[in-house]
Amino acid sequence: MIMDKLFEQAEKYGPVCVGLDTQEAFLPGYLQKKDWSLGEKFFAFNQKIIDATYDHIACYKIQIACYEALGLDGMKAFQKTVRYARGKGQIVISDVKRGDISSTAKQYAQGHFTGDFETDLITVNAYMGEDAVSPYYPYLEKEKGLFLLVKTSNPSSVDLQDLDVGGAPLYIKMAQAVSRWGEAFVGTSGFSAIGAVVGLTYPAEFLKIKEVMPRTFFLIPGYGAQGGTGKDIAEIFKDRICGVVNSSRGIIGAHRGKTDGEDFDVYVNQAAIDMREDILKWL
Amino acid sequence: MIMDKLFEQAEKYGPVCVGLDTQEAFLPGYLQKKDWSLGEKFFAFNQKIIDATYDHIACYKIQIACYEALGLDGMKAFQKTVRYARGKGQIVISDVKRGDISSTAKQYAQGHFTGDFETDLITVNAYMGEDAVSPYYPYLEKEKGLFLLVKTSNPSSVDLQDLDVGGAPLYIKMAQAVSRWGEAFVGTSGFSAIGAVVGLTYPAEFLKIKEVMPRTFFLIPGYGAQGGTGKDIAEIFKDRICGVVNSSRGIIGAHRGKTDGEDFDVYVNQAAIDMREDILKWL
Repeated sequence: MIMDKLFEQAEKYGPVCVGLDTQEAFLPGYLQKKDWSLGEKFFAFNQKIIDATYDHIACYKIQIACYEALGLDGMKAFQKTVRYARGKGQIVISDVKRGDISSTAKQYAQGHFTGDFETDLITVNAYMGEDAVSPYYPYLEKEKGLFLLVKTSNPSSVDLQDLDVGGAPLYIKMAQAVSRWGEAFVGTSGFSAIGAVVGLTYPAEFLKIKEVMPRTFFLIPGYGAQGGTGKDIAEIFKDRICGVVNSSRGIIGAHRGKTDGEDFDVYVNQAAIDMREDILKWL
Repeated sequence: MIMDKLFEQAEKYGPVCVGLDTQEAFLPGYLQKKDWSLGEKFFAFNQKIIDATYDHIACYKIQIACYEALGLDGMKAFQKTVRYARGKGQIVISDVKRGDISSTAKQYAQGHFTGDFETDLITVNAYMGEDAVSPYYPYLEKEKGLFLLVKTSNPSSVDLQDLDVGGAPLYIKMAQAVSRWGEAFVGTSGFSAIGAVVGLTYPAEFLKIKEVMPRTFFLIPGYGAQGGTGKDIAEIFKDRICGVVNSSRGIIGAHRGKTDGEDFDVYVNQAAIDMREDILKWL
């Protein structure tokens, strides 16, 4: 099961997930100046980051929106980035947040678990209910996995997710549903191949969510730029590491204002190491 | 405002939205046999359908998942299809159901409202709240529009959407939120550039939803294969047409078992006309 592997990686190298939310503003000057398409620059940028970090982080998360924004050129860069990171033996989470009815979800499963865009795990939005999730089940036996949105890290996540549903917020109902759907896919680590996205920006709520989903591995956004700290994570990981913590601009933008050259990856790598230390020192 | 235009189209030609959820199984034999990539076959298929229908339907809905499933080759077919339909002067809804935090939604807006994949309207999942929607607002002044998921047509839409939130189901809360967000973008037709996806499969619920969103134009899946009828639609359109009704396999698969030749578009076109008649006869 993929989640056993991801858990092992997080135990061995620390729970850092490097978010490749690549944007033009992050490219160092020497790449900006190249006579290449933006997608080619994105891939060259990502490639150097992967080379510098792949052997001592838990995984990569690739935000497909950043590539979709560039059209076909971007989709090519997305495909090459996923393939390059997986070619290094790394685990890749494609952050696609797809969510659609059964017949459509089957198409997304084919798109992201086979072929050009083949990845290890994808994020899924389950507002449409279990039949937006079940088409992925056959892939969970084949080393693929999911992270379902439970409580997101953005300010207006309260709009819907915090609505009171019979005495508990909606995100708790979602957590219970996700936990129940995941029961059939628990691996040797005790974690299910169906994980959950829960933002670090609401630490007290995170602990309540964890209680109702004891076999769930988490993808945790909201560290750094969005306000979450290593201390918040220590509380969540108190029994054992139960998730990976994503940082995007805090890592892949770490060189900004420091270098415009090819040595940008030194700063990026250092940021990933610093983040790991910031988390591990509390554990 | 794009929704004024879509309303005009629906009034003039009937409220039929042709869903280009193209799949290999729908391709007639003569296309199956071509020595082309699957994406090229998809585009050739779509092109003939668009040629046969564009001047007497309301709009097209293109389900991106069917194209994402084929990787880069599929994305190219998606781009060509959107562009071809818009080149004929038609309105295109890209059914992408994206939903992500503000900075990411900005990327999706760029991806689908400009560049290679530029379309007229997209579907959006607002489980993450208003900041997953607001990055699209600047585009609403530029002839772009949204359809937000409120109550979907799939059986397990009840899992989350029907949870009781203080005496009303969650989908009513979502409907209220979507209606509120849309108030700033109401056009001359009285409809907002922020529309809603509400499935036809639950007609009684549809009427309750309509009550709380009087200025909302609907994208209505669930006709035909999913069980919704022309009579159900008449109830919803009783005052005036307030949405477009999508049919995918009922139209683009209408030729199956009848022809394997290039004349497949005759059956497809007839199915679109029959659907319009089935709706209009009740109005």
